[in-house]
Amino acid sequence: MRLLLVNPNTSASITDLVVSAAREFAAPGTTIAGATGRFGARYIATRAAAAVAAHATLDAYAEHARGADVVVLACFGDPGLAGLKELAHQPVVGMAEAACYYAATLGRRFGIVTGGARWGPMLEEFVRSIGLSERLAGIKTVAPSGADIARDPERAHAMLVDASNALVEECEADSVILGGAGLARIAARIAERVSVPLIDSVGAAVKAAEALGNLGPSKARVGSFAQTPAVETVGLAAALAARMEGR
Amino acid sequence: MRLLLVNPNTSASITDLVVSAAREFAAPGTTIAGATGRFGARYIATRAAAAVAAHATLDAYAEHARGADVVVLACFGDPGLAGLKELAHQPVVGMAEAACYYAATLGRRFGIVTGGARWGPMLEEFVRSIGLSERLAGIKTVAPSGADIARDPERAHAMLVDASNALVEECEADSVILGGAGLARIAARIAERVSVPLIDSVGAAVKAAEALGNLGPSKARVGSFAQTPAVETVGLAAALAARMEGR
Amino acid sequence: MRLLLVNPNTSASITDLVVSAAREFAAPGTTIAGATGRFGARYIATRAAAAVAAHATLDAYAEHARGADVVVLACFGDPGLAGLKELAHQPVVGMAEAACYYAATLGRRFGIVTGGARWGPMLEEFVRSIGLSERLAGIKTVAPSGADIARDPERAHAMLVDASNALVEECEADSVILGGAGLARIAARIAERVSVPLIDSVGAAVKAAEALGNLGPSKARVGSFAQTPAVETVGLAAALAARMEGR
Amino acid sequence: MRLLLVNPNTSASITDLVVSAAREFAAPGTTIAGATGRFGARYIATRAAAAVAAHATLDAYAEHARGADVVVLACFGDPGLAGLKELAHQPVVGMAEAACYYAATLGRRFGIVTGGARWGPMLEEFVRSIGLSERLAGIKTVAPSGADIARDPERAHAMLVDASNALVEECEADSVILGGAGLARIAARIAERVSVPLIDSVGAAVKAAEALGNLGPSKARVGSFAQTPAVETVGLAAALAARMEGR
Amino acid sequence: MRLLLVNPNTSASITDLVVSAAREFAAPGTTIAGATGRFGARYIATRAAAAVAAHATLDAYAEHARGADVVVLACFGDPGLAGLKELAHQPVVGMAEAACYYAATLGRRFGIVTGGARWGPMLEEFVRSIGLSERLAGIKTVAPSGADIARDPERAHAMLVDASNALVEECEADSVILGGAGLARIAARIAERVSVPLIDSVGAAVKAAEALGNLGPSKARVGSFAQTPAVETVGLAAALAARMEGR
Amino acid sequence: MRLLLVNPNTSASITDLVVSAAREFAAPGTTIAGATGRFGARYIATRAAAAVAAHATLDAYAEHARGADVVVLACFGDPGLAGLKELAHQPVVGMAEAACYYAATLGRRFGIVTGGARWGPMLEEFVRSIGLSERLAGIKTVAPSGADIARDPERAHAMLVDASNALVEECEADSVILGGAGLARIAARIAERVSVPLIDSVGAAVKAAEALGNLGPSKARVGSFAQTPAVETVGLAAALAARMEGR
Repeated sequence: MRLLLVNPNTSASITDLVVSAAREFAAPGTTIAGATGRFGARYIATRAAAAVAAHATLDAYAEHARGADVVVLACFGDPGLAGLKELAHQPVVGMAEAACYYAATLGRRFGIVTGGARWGPMLEEFVRSIGLSERLAGIKTVAPSGADIARDPERAHAMLVDASNALVEECEADSVILGGAGLARIAARIAERVSVPLIDSVGAAVKAAEALGNLGPSKARVGSFAQTPAVETVGLAAALAARMEGR
Repeated sequence: MRLLLVNPNTSASITDLVVSAAREFAAPGTTIAGATGRFGARYIATRAAAAVAAHATLDAYAEHARGADVVVLACFGDPGLAGLKELAHQPVVGMAEAACYYAATLGRRFGIVTGGARWGPMLEEFVRSIGLSERLAGIKTVAPSGADIARDPERAHAMLVDASNALVEECEADSVILGGAGLARIAARIAERVSVPLIDSVGAAVKAAEALGNLGPSKARVGSFAQTPAVETVGLAAALAARMEGR
Repeated sequence: MRLLLVNPNTSASITDLVVSAAREFAAPGTTIAGATGRFGARYIATRAAAAVAAHATLDAYAEHARGADVVVLACFGDPGLAGLKELAHQPVVGMAEAACYYAATLGRRFGIVTGGARWGPMLEEFVRSIGLSERLAGIKTVAPSGADIARDPERAHAMLVDASNALVEECEADSVILGGAGLARIAARIAERVSVPLIDSVGAAVKAAEALGNLGPSKARVGSFAQTPAVETVGLAAALAARMEGR
Repeated sequence: MRLLLVNPNTSASITDLVVSAAREFAAPGTTIAGATGRFGARYIATRAAAAVAAHATLDAYAEHARGADVVVLACFGDPGLAGLKELAHQPVVGMAEAACYYAATLGRRFGIVTGGARWGPMLEEFVRSIGLSERLAGIKTVAPSGADIARDPERAHAMLVDASNALVEECEADSVILGGAGLARIAARIAERVSVPLIDSVGAAVKAAEALGNLGPSKARVGSFAQTPAVETVGLAAALAARMEGR
Repeated sequence: MRLLLVNPNTSASITDLVVSAAREFAAPGTTIAGATGRFGARYIATRAAAAVAAHATLDAYAEHARGADVVVLACFGDPGLAGLKELAHQPVVGMAEAACYYAATLGRRFGIVTGGARWGPMLEEFVRSIGLSERLAGIKTVAPSGADIARDPERAHAMLVDASNALVEECEADSVILGGAGLARIAARIAERVSVPLIDSVGAAVKAAEALGNLGPSKARVGSFAQTPAVETVGLAAALAARMEGR
Repeated sequence: MRLLLVNPNTSASITDLVVSAAREFAAPGTTIAGATGRFGARYIATRAAAAVAAHATLDAYAEHARGADVVVLACFGDPGLAGLKELAHQPVVGMAEAACYYAATLGRRFGIVTGGARWGPMLEEFVRSIGLSERLAGIKTVAPSGADIARDPERAHAMLVDASNALVEECEADSVILGGAGLARIAARIAERVSVPLIDSVGAAVKAAEALGNLGPSKARVGSFAQTPAVETVGLAAALAARMEGR
């Protein structure tokens, strides 16, 4: 099974990070390819950057879709998710979406820890948009950049442990998602210091994608996720234009 | 007061239509300028096209923002609204947003009539995203394109009258929004044939924009709608890049 | 355009205050008249007083309705709003209603600051009744009476600044409404000391009323806001009796 | 135990009807007195009439409160309920409130049948205001007046049976409330023809009131239902003024 | 009227406690019998124990149903409530259910105090399941066992007073339920030290049961609470098997 | 990886059916064992039977838990799910739970088709209990038993196709779950005749279980899903008693 990880952050290093983490979680026989957004923020951390990223997601998908069995929107917060599900021939899953549904099976309420203050309200809106607000215990954002984490991992780990346990103690979280490529593979390292299960959003996404690949749902033939009708476009990259124009 | 109408549909004719309709509603002293999306669908009617449009909205805003007092996102469904509110120095209002809040003052439940079948679920999600689902009676979409309407206006009017009255009779709508540039100025013409008030979404947006211009709210200095922190970007048009990078 | 401000507080001085504030916000050509409740509490601050005020609202409207183009229910909390919308021939908007919808366009969540402890739960119920609870960050009530404010404005201002900033910091408010006639015109004076936009409820109501006056929605001919059927009454003032009895 | 039934409909005949029905449901030792609204609609069937009725409820209560152990707001729809709970020294229950909570124990969803078309949306709002919307299957209103029912009871019964069974078949109601004084004592007569339990709103209210009388809850000393602080009033009847002014 | 109190806690002493408390609240002419669960936890305090208790509830009911007019599920949290309502020929009410609906009539929001930490989330889920979450102020659980309370009542009372007042001050509770057999009869003793009405869940249940007995609702003949169709079973006690198999 | 499928229906033939279907979906290396409920209904189709089944679920789990890596509650509707998650040392997933979360990734709204009329409201309550009501398009139940299906599969398939397409056309379902062991393996056979993706609940459960097995979440050490504290029990089977008593 070939998974395509679309990363609308315009940093190849983040794509490398998420692809490499994904490979650790993949089943034997699953191959992972990555596609990086061609335009927009190096690191998506604002509402405006997320809006641009939705386009970059579709653009990167159209360019790299060939040969993929399943598509993962590999940016926690899932910018462009609904449009991608409509546009893609393959099944699609978002990294935040997958992590939230997985977390919801581990208890009553889940918390989210991620980097970047604006992702707090943006993720709260995302969880509401997938109808799961009742299950959300709360969200804590931490400040350090990936570079900071690389420089002083133990300090970053301590911060994540504290944020996770705060969600447990203050908000009755029964599980906590560590969201985003930057936090991939940390869950396993700090799990013992947090009193509820920690969820690696990359791992959750890979498993959800493999389930899609194995179960092989058909594409809806009616409704707002059916194959998009051809529309005339201007100014788009050739691959995206071709797909939207039904060529 | 100078209003900038940002139309992410990449058809200058739609921009002309909405600008010209807006001028009919504008107060003396209000001037209206339009900006057309540079890339994306000629007419936004799918989830994928709406995702691209959010970027086109920011791009067109950045290019044309200078001199505007208030910005109207002049595409019913408001793609990119939150990002635009974050990015813009000026107050911003969306056409669907304005119409919904206005409609909500006219009774208990409002309905929406617009063109294009996928806008049904997309607008249902939009109304949920602004927290107003309890007030939504229902949505009816009609098929004809703007060209159809131009060719045979009476037939189109009959269809809109029927959809509006159906929302009243089946869903207890107390008012009905005719949403979108294509339906501008029709409300006044068919009002007598519908048993509840009809709302012209362009008119509602112009009045909401003028209110913003007159009341002059400050820009939030904290929170997720405050001036966006500078982020490094790639591949964006110069004006949008400059604004996102804080230059 | 002639606006009628109905103030069910039975204090002409409050009516004068709200009328005079409204004139500052009104467009050229808008004239403002006030009507004061004839019975009930001098200052509405309890559930019982609000219940009486709903009647006083209708009574004052019926007595002063002639010649008005739009009616503003000029008591923050809007007692009698639904009945007034049903009864009035003209469009009607409530001061709290207008401020909440306006605030909702300025970010994700809005807060409310007003005077009188019981207005806390009463306004929470009001916001729920208009279906906007998801958008409400929180409510803070302050103690000082209008007289207190007049005597020591700076102290009152400091209290309002603190309450507003608390809503931002504790509840993630993206904007804050200063609700009520007593707080009119204060928003402009303390805006610089609060980190999100402050909303003057009188200003929001005047702009919403002018929009109604300009857009001129028809009166619903069916549904629960249509012209009320004639009902037989007893013991009412002549003007209200005449209107309810369809004379 | 002495129950006071406050009927804000200004028709003594309706008060007599509800008092007489209540006596049939009352336990030995329970005495029932009635108080009729002094002003407002003969029969409350509009939003405006309900607004006036909230005042009439408090007025009638204040005049007749002495000696009552428990107060029943005996108008289905409960106009003025929150204000009355605040104002009264005694425990208070509304007829619609009591019937809804009782109905909720008889299954998953309850329906409501009552007279007068506007009560449909008004009761839907009432049920929402008590937080019970999830449990509401639907509401059907029937046209006939009390006089009609008296003239041709069998025809009215058939109409009520049909409306009740429609709520079962179309809306999955597990029980149906026959709401209002006009429908009192009919439930028992038509129960065999309806496939789910029928609830007499007068009976439910009497039993809820007796429960309050037996359990004797204290009056809250804090919060928005505590004894109302004294407020200065004008233009009210002496008894209501005295109570609101704390005299 | 004969009430059967089904206590799925497998401790006859708890049954004795709740029966004896119930008798204090019962009207003259009401007789109270108790039935104790035959299997499961001595004291239900976990999700697993509650799951077993739902079966024990049906089992004890089937064994002791004969002659009862009304059934009370006398374990606060009401395990097996929906199944019991389906299975029983008589009207059924749960102790938590009855207390919540009663509490909802005493103000806007009610709180719950009970023993056992896991009952916090379990009761939050219960309140959601009956559609009353909007009315729930919060839940506080206290640690002491019944034995502890017996040994040092004053210390337990102080703890309950503190928890109750905390719900008032932190969560704006307008009333507080003392939930469970172990807390029966304490409300009356500590009421003066709590600033809002305290509700004895046993008392609320007895009054709700008597209302059911007096009003005598029929059994639904359709829907998911109608008499259960006969199903083939294995391994059940004879009485329960007979009832489920329709013998 | 060893999956234990707990089937609280007390029919070994249903267990065989679900185990055999599960094996078709299982990855290489996944082994499937089944455990059948020892008491309760042969086929769970009522609220009472579901209440008993929750106990049977725990009982069967306790008897067969040894050696399992992940536990699947293999009865669509998931009776006893929360208790099992609390009690089990291993990760647990329910068949309905897994199918609903999976379905939610395939569009906006999902529908459910299953057998047995009472499962309609019971599953609606289940979906609400997992906080996913906003995503539920609707539920259709069909009448035929498994025996019927075996006798005349084409007729049963036609019925399932019709029910699925009705959910698409009437309720805007973007995907449809065929829920339950009796409907296992049918999705693949009728997929071409339904216009949206069909979900096999057994397949969804197996993939969710494998994800749990691969990701290996820890057991919460705090909260209401942590290892249950030891409680004293009576009358339980030895294995369940041992687990609940912490032996």
